[in-house]
Amino acid sequence: MKARVTITLKPGVLDPQGRAIQNALGGLGFAGVAGVRQGKVIELDLADGTSEAEVDDMAKRLLANTVIENYRIELL
Amino acid sequence: MKARVTITLKPGVLDPQGRAIQNALGGLGFAGVAGVRQGKVIELDLADGTSEAEVDDMAKRLLANTVIENYRIELL
Repeated sequence: MKARVTITLKPGVLDPQGRAIQNALGGLGFAGVAGVRQGKVIELDLADGTSEAEVDDMAKRLLANTVIENYRIELL
Repeated sequence: MKARVTITLKPGVLDPQGRAIQNALGGLGFAGVAGVRQGKVIELDLADGTSEAEVDDMAKRLLANTVIENYRIELL
């Protein structure tokens, strides 16, 4: 089975990478880019029967820094 | 309007970050993790009326390295 964990910075947390992308897009001539936020997506190939609670535990303990990041789990 | 661009490594491309996460999950005692792939998710805050073709152009020219990465666009 597969699971996808999408990790994004919490609102209000400064995102220098997103800012750099925004500036670069402007430099390439793309108008109307009001904001850019970059996050991570982690795709896990898991043994069948792995529960969402286990994936949540993985996210809490390793995949996400829950002080500054939110995460969302999708079982695929 | 918002758009989300999900960027993942193409199959077959070595993913050292994914491998490191897999080893770390094993070290924390999570069994049954057969594989981990890490990618990026970029959330764009765009002017209304921005077309998917423009977002596709942004992805091709800046956001993704199309030699080793695939990307998927969602208009939100």
